[in-house]
Amino acid sequence: MVHPTGQTHAGAGRQAVVLLSGGLDSYTTAAIARSQGYACAALTLAYGQRHDHEITCARRIAEELGLHPHKILDLDLAAFGGSALLGHGQVPQNGPDPNIIPSTYVPARNTILLALALAWAETLDAFDIFLGVNAVDYSGYPDCRPEFLQAFEKTANLGTRAAIENRGRFHIHAPLLTLTKAQIIRRGVALGLDYALTHSCYAPDAQGRPCGRCDSCVLRRRGFDQAGVKDPLPYLHSPPLEP
Amino acid sequence: MVHPTGQTHAGAGRQAVVLLSGGLDSYTTAAIARSQGYACAALTLAYGQRHDHEITCARRIAEELGLHPHKILDLDLAAFGGSALLGHGQVPQNGPDPNIIPSTYVPARNTILLALALAWAETLDAFDIFLGVNAVDYSGYPDCRPEFLQAFEKTANLGTRAAIENRGRFHIHAPLLTLTKAQIIRRGVALGLDYALTHSCYAPDAQGRPCGRCDSCVLRRRGFDQAGVKDPLPYLHSPPLEP
Repeated sequence: MVHPTGQTHAGAGRQAVVLLSGGLDSYTTAAIARSQGYACAALTLAYGQRHDHEITCARRIAEELGLHPHKILDLDLAAFGGSALLGHGQVPQNGPDPNIIPSTYVPARNTILLALALAWAETLDAFDIFLGVNAVDYSGYPDCRPEFLQAFEKTANLGTRAAIENRGRFHIHAPLLTLTKAQIIRRGVALGLDYALTHSCYAPDAQGRPCGRCDSCVLRRRGFDQAGVKDPLPYLHSPPLEP
Repeated sequence: MVHPTGQTHAGAGRQAVVLLSGGLDSYTTAAIARSQGYACAALTLAYGQRHDHEITCARRIAEELGLHPHKILDLDLAAFGGSALLGHGQVPQNGPDPNIIPSTYVPARNTILLALALAWAETLDAFDIFLGVNAVDYSGYPDCRPEFLQAFEKTANLGTRAAIENRGRFHIHAPLLTLTKAQIIRRGVALGLDYALTHSCYAPDAQGRPCGRCDSCVLRRRGFDQAGVKDPLPYLHSPPLEP
């Protein structure tokens, strides 16, 4: 049953676990899950991000959308190194290139996120896990591809007690997978979302204000621009966007 | 090339990541990996176990076997609940039953462990991950089955930059998979292992001494008995073992 705003009742009354980063994509994903009738619990991983401000945003979003409970789990992925997002190397400002894997790739991040969401979902007897990966964030990230998500789903259904005991089958939902940033933003606006609550910047200042120049800011700014929507964030810099 | 003690040179000069719990199985697994010529890094997850003594044992084993570096990662899985091992419910003392999933099952534990090992392996440019699951520990644990391990391996090779860029293919090694506890112990003894370094009990006392009565102690004691090897651990109780 599809509503004008794209809502369905697929999840009516069922519990889901939503991975919530504090960014625009996971906010929109959570809102879509809620609009489909799921009662959403939210899981945020504090994994040694350079930008702790994301966690603050995740809290605000969970409160705003009524995602409950909201668990914030600490995990020191920086101990492994290997990503510009974890304090190793510069964050990219060369313009996002969809053909290379950026230095902000965190090794096996989505595998870890999904594994943790799976553990919690199993405990809650929830079988639906929502993740805000999309075609733009993809830009070469291997763990944002549909074949990866399918393989994880299969793993989940083999490696859990709930699946073995036939209490249900886990589904990994990635409702943004094939959407552009502009389409995601339009979808969120239609759902009444306030994107001032979110955070996207790789290199914010101490108050959490976005730089406006890193690849993540540029992707976001371009998305709002193409969607014809005003981005409510107070960028420190707003250099012209290349087409 | 197989040596009399079962060693091969499959891993000569290559780096591997071994998941090390501090128990008998992961100790033996690490020793097998080393005997195959792998240079082993060890990963221990401190996930809110009731038995912290396991972590101490993991440290001793890593030192004894020269597993380097050894990372101990904190992760509060108890926040999710759902397992007797994490402080929810009684640990089982009814005799291990291979036909039911015990209350000590930790939701999605091996998925989480493998995801974290994968992240580190990718950072190290290592493609071999060793995990000490076996047919006895299996006793209904869904995430100890070969089809689960194969599905995870496929997920790993789809979800990582290293695999996408064809730098290598990840392999999940579970050398104990089809061995009984007695066979594992014989294998370890042949490799010169000192099982006094290990810990298996679900309910040790404050000094880490094993109870001798929980299902894990019973499985272990029976394994040593069947292997004809003396268990070096100082059990608090040693009730007769049923056949």
